[in-house]
Amino acid sequence: MNENQQEKLVLVDGEIMPEAEAFIDVNDRGHNFGDGVFEIVPVYNGRCFALLPHMNNLFDSVIAVKIPGVYMIEELVEFHESLLAATGLKDCEIYTQVTRGSGAYALSYPEQSIPHLTMYAVPVDREALAEKRAKGVNVITVEDVRWARCDINTLNRLPEVMAKQKAVIGNAFDSLFVRDGKITESTEASFFIYKDGILWTHPENNFIHKNITRRLLMERLSKDLDLQIIERAFDKDFALKADEAFLCGPRCEFMPVTKIDRSFVADGKVGELTQKLQDAYMAFVAKECPAKHE
Amino acid sequence: MNENQQEKLVLVDGEIMPEAEAFIDVNDRGHNFGDGVFEIVPVYNGRCFALLPHMNNLFDSVIAVKIPGVYMIEELVEFHESLLAATGLKDCEIYTQVTRGSGAYALSYPEQSIPHLTMYAVPVDREALAEKRAKGVNVITVEDVRWARCDINTLNRLPEVMAKQKAVIGNAFDSLFVRDGKITESTEASFFIYKDGILWTHPENNFIHKNITRRLLMERLSKDLDLQIIERAFDKDFALKADEAFLCGPRCEFMPVTKIDRSFVADGKVGELTQKLQDAYMAFVAKECPAKHE
Repeated sequence: MNENQQEKLVLVDGEIMPEAEAFIDVNDRGHNFGDGVFEIVPVYNGRCFALLPHMNNLFDSVIAVKIPGVYMIEELVEFHESLLAATGLKDCEIYTQVTRGSGAYALSYPEQSIPHLTMYAVPVDREALAEKRAKGVNVITVEDVRWARCDINTLNRLPEVMAKQKAVIGNAFDSLFVRDGKITESTEASFFIYKDGILWTHPENNFIHKNITRRLLMERLSKDLDLQIIERAFDKDFALKADEAFLCGPRCEFMPVTKIDRSFVADGKVGELTQKLQDAYMAFVAKECPAKHE
Repeated sequence: MNENQQEKLVLVDGEIMPEAEAFIDVNDRGHNFGDGVFEIVPVYNGRCFALLPHMNNLFDSVIAVKIPGVYMIEELVEFHESLLAATGLKDCEIYTQVTRGSGAYALSYPEQSIPHLTMYAVPVDREALAEKRAKGVNVITVEDVRWARCDINTLNRLPEVMAKQKAVIGNAFDSLFVRDGKITESTEASFFIYKDGILWTHPENNFIHKNITRRLLMERLSKDLDLQIIERAFDKDFALKADEAFLCGPRCEFMPVTKIDRSFVADGKVGELTQKLQDAYMAFVAKECPAKHE
């Protein structure tokens, strides 16, 4: 029950077990067709951050792909807490995935399948992320070949796998997807620029993921900091001429982007507003997820 | 060892086992990200049809998504034969899927993962298909929301799952995908029309699957029957004015389409050329997969 646990634990259909003993059906539709959805919840001080909004996101995706009768939200909350208690992890991310369950190998499915739930607690090195944040990161651009329903968090993530791998090989932090010449988002986060005192980002439509950190920025932090936001698609040249650029998501928080395809954004320095947003985010997190006194 | 086997068998990483005892890792990247590829081989008289072209297709997809060091083609041939021998199935389809294997829950992957192979022998009711073929089928159209690399046979099949389910619910045989107003293909087959003595179909590009039955038509049957083929995208109105329409793929063979979205194609009768192509296909199959005398 500590962070140095030898044995990784996962939660499968409500039951916590060692990862090495956790298996899924060879006929699980997640395995055959990527027929399922996922959500990621960041954990600070052993507490889930913005769990309910993230679970609402998960349910939106469940409904969009018509997976029947999933767990109640109260059960999912309980599963998150049990998994944290069992693993003892304080800084981690919890990945939840729900597949349509097992079935015959056929594209069509019975209306009444039994969904299959798997939850993973993945440790996060937030110090390493903070170091990256202090220097800023470089990203590359890749063609956005994804489908036209990126707003659903499905398990069909191969385009993101390929784009992320391209970034890793190119020694970049992440890849920015470009569709019809405009930047949509990165493989795991929203992309913002700050220019002439205004924040710009791609509109929240079918071409980008629903992202709770982005929503926090749009609905809360921007108001606290009195920021104007324009939701309009823009291209790389426009981004390179911005005063600041950053990624924003539950995994990277507010990550300054100082280079795109090896060209500097502005003067290549970490922007002040990005730092201010990260600070505001962390203050918000500290309130929501205070350290536990045990 | 007969077609009425109580126990379904699958092949996992080269070993044949009862389906009920076959499990995959909870961390298999197929399960987490649809990070893998598939191929379908039709079996007639207990023999695989066009096995090598289908395996070449599989390897093309393996290479496209950079899955390392998969089995040799000779091993895959042997696995197909063993699975047929063990199940005793004579009329079936063999689904092969290769995932990148197990790994930490992260989009990026280690270069040296160990791929994970699963093979399923799924019985086919070819008499039921022949009955449909005698009357022709209706199809519906759906927006083609798929990604821009449909030429790779990946396990990211949720758009096809959703489109097929829509067809099933609408009492249709399949859905035709429509991208930018033009018909690309169905969830499982290529789409052709016959008009003024010419066959039309969508060009084989990144928007349609590689399909061995289509290739057989293009490279062999069309020559035997002296048919002209135009590879050019067309819309539904053009298709409705055709003399004949059909689907062509390893699962449905040459299936006459007599209605699209409840409107008749031509006079709504099964076309002569489609029947002729089906006959030519079956003659070809009979030569390649003769009945075994045991």
